[in-house]
Amino acid sequence: LLLFHRRSIMKSALSFLVAARECEIGELEQLALTSELVSLVGRLIHALQKERGISNVYLGSQGRRFAEQRAPQALESDQLALHVRERFDELYSGPHSVRNGARLFARIAAVLHGLDELPGLRERIGARTLGADESTAAFVRLISGLLAVVFEAADSATDPQVSRALVAMFNFMQGKEFAGQERALGAMVFVGGHVDDCEQQWQQLIDTQERCFQVFANFADRAALETWSAQRNGPKLAELERLRRVGRSPRSGAPLDPQLGQAWYDCCTHRIDAMRTVEDTLASHLRALCERRIEQTRAELRDQQAILGTLSRPSGPQPPTPIGPQLERSILDMLQEQTLRLQAMSDELDTVRASLNERRVVERAKGLLMAARKLSEDAAYKLLREAAMNQSRRLVDVAERIIEAHELLDPKA
Amino acid sequence: LLLFHRRSIMKSALSFLVAARECEIGELEQLALTSELVSLVGRLIHALQKERGISNVYLGSQGRRFAEQRAPQALESDQLALHVRERFDELYSGPHSVRNGARLFARIAAVLHGLDELPGLRERIGARTLGADESTAAFVRLISGLLAVVFEAADSATDPQVSRALVAMFNFMQGKEFAGQERALGAMVFVGGHVDDCEQQWQQLIDTQERCFQVFANFADRAALETWSAQRNGPKLAELERLRRVGRSPRSGAPLDPQLGQAWYDCCTHRIDAMRTVEDTLASHLRALCERRIEQTRAELRDQQAILGTLSRPSGPQPPTPIGPQLERSILDMLQEQTLRLQAMSDELDTVRASLNERRVVERAKGLLMAARKLSEDAAYKLLREAAMNQSRRLVDVAERIIEAHELLDPKA
Repeated sequence: LLLFHRRSIMKSALSFLVAARECEIGELEQLALTSELVSLVGRLIHALQKERGISNVYLGSQGRRFAEQRAPQALESDQLALHVRERFDELYSGPHSVRNGARLFARIAAVLHGLDELPGLRERIGARTLGADESTAAFVRLISGLLAVVFEAADSATDPQVSRALVAMFNFMQGKEFAGQERALGAMVFVGGHVDDCEQQWQQLIDTQERCFQVFANFADRAALETWSAQRNGPKLAELERLRRVGRSPRSGAPLDPQLGQAWYDCCTHRIDAMRTVEDTLASHLRALCERRIEQTRAELRDQQAILGTLSRPSGPQPPTPIGPQLERSILDMLQEQTLRLQAMSDELDTVRASLNERRVVERAKGLLMAARKLSEDAAYKLLREAAMNQSRRLVDVAERIIEAHELLDPKA
Repeated sequence: LLLFHRRSIMKSALSFLVAARECEIGELEQLALTSELVSLVGRLIHALQKERGISNVYLGSQGRRFAEQRAPQALESDQLALHVRERFDELYSGPHSVRNGARLFARIAAVLHGLDELPGLRERIGARTLGADESTAAFVRLISGLLAVVFEAADSATDPQVSRALVAMFNFMQGKEFAGQERALGAMVFVGGHVDDCEQQWQQLIDTQERCFQVFANFADRAALETWSAQRNGPKLAELERLRRVGRSPRSGAPLDPQLGQAWYDCCTHRIDAMRTVEDTLASHLRALCERRIEQTRAELRDQQAILGTLSRPSGPQPPTPIGPQLERSILDMLQEQTLRLQAMSDELDTVRASLNERRVVERAKGLLMAARKLSEDAAYKLLREAAMNQSRRLVDVAERIIEAHELLDPKA
């Protein structure tokens, strides 16, 4: 160590501070790319939700209604899917390029497979060789795969501010999807004329939506919150609540008025379309945030590089000027400040990411059920949901019990 | 989407599975590098711990003892430090190359600055212009910076098995450092002749050591555990416990026999040197584990690439053979299996990483104190430690209260 000149050692500490800053910028740039992908995925999900609704009406009306709306909607879905595929391909440029790459890419592979099944699904819908429930389930599966991609993106964010925005986005998208599933369920109920055994499932869809929007509200930026609360006070929401009440507790014996089906569908669709505008607000906030954070971090990097430049300046025939106590002090301050800041960021990040835990718990319980009882993902989820209904518990509580029980039962765990 | 041939779409899903696997390998290779660094850092810490002990004896004996051992020990520390520096430099090869780079590099910068201060520190020790406590504090700071590098490495591991090994390693190294600090404290007490107000601090060093070794025991491999428990039953440990008892509760009024100082020092040193062999066992386990995991994952990657090759084979003048239902089934199985496996890995990882939380909580409370009361890191830690002693609470409990209080007090939190 004595071989090192003091100047070169200070320089070496500083260059690692600079390297740390460069890593931060690299991570932020990666996040900016991922955020763009998330916005695009949101648009594809919206198109698929519309296509699911149109297909349901088509199948429910024995092909009499919405036949002419199918092809243009399929085209819109396909065009967006092509864009999403292009972004997927851009994302991968070598094993080191993507944080959380292993999980993200496995999710993407599942989505690509789901998109692959779309043409076959549409053929069967056109030929009406499958029921509305089967068609709904296929779209739900594909959309859930796309949401899993968004989840991985939110889960792997390293900047707490960007992570907040992504968590708000993911929860909003998830809530919107539950709203879409509620639309499909309600439509079936109104067309069928009675709620039968769907009442609890309906309640669950309402509850999970509300929880998602609550988490969204905890993490969203002001503009998105304002757009959202303006919508919640619209007249259509009162109508939605009225139809929910009518649909879920019809006077005993009396069948539901099938005409309400159209009103229900319109009212839900209006609400879901309005949610798209909230998503757009979230997306532009996310974009602006990434840009701002990159710019900030670049400015800080430039400051550090300037000091590093002073230290590296070739000294020519004169001996290098010694590091003044002031410069040394400022490097020490930077060291301490940067470490504390990164520590605080990582704590904040832990807090934000904790809000994603509910989904993690449900996913894990689902995986345990799939492995233990050799079930498909759908069947495992259905089992969970039914257990929750029978026990009048939240899905996540049932999932937690399964995990606890598994840990007690399995000696390896 | 209809433009795509089924074969090419299946291929595209599979290539993302392959990409996911490549990312896993990339992360494992990174972990292998980090693990080598961690082993080397362990050796540097051991050398610095010896140098700290020698310096203490030298200063405590007014320069009469260990004068001739100082230079060779400094040389050993310096040589290891040079190796560590080289590894640090190798680690950085572009902003995307290191997971958790921002935090890791900021920690490295702090270590480099600490190493920079070593020559000056040694000069003052040689001239005996500083006390043993000041010298100890400087070494403690440097070693704690090196442990922070190991912590970041353990915290950023993405493979649960490797993460377990790194968590075991970090906790063992941290426990060993507390054992080193106990050696220094005990030496001061025996030389001074009375325990004074160090009694609680001594107890705390024993408790935190035990907790570290407990976590180590929860996560370590069998070979390391066996090496460790063989040592715990050695005759030297009984002697250590006896000296702990004598040193901490001397008969009232009667000063301690200063001759016990040498016995204490030898007995602690014997124990700490033995810990080095446990660390070596941990390090070779870590190395073997990384190699095995890389090999496994490469074999799995080859299988997937072989299937991908089948799909990509140019079909010549004949139309491409359609994908048989069997091949399609096996791709679907791979999709499901890989997603479930990654999910399970990530859950297991969360569980392992949770054991690092105690340190995170203490670090955060320290950061809050530093910011709120404009304290140095040392002073903030001392304040925490004193509060824990006064309240007869564990350090981490006091830290948790500070964080809770801060969240209540600070409207932004």
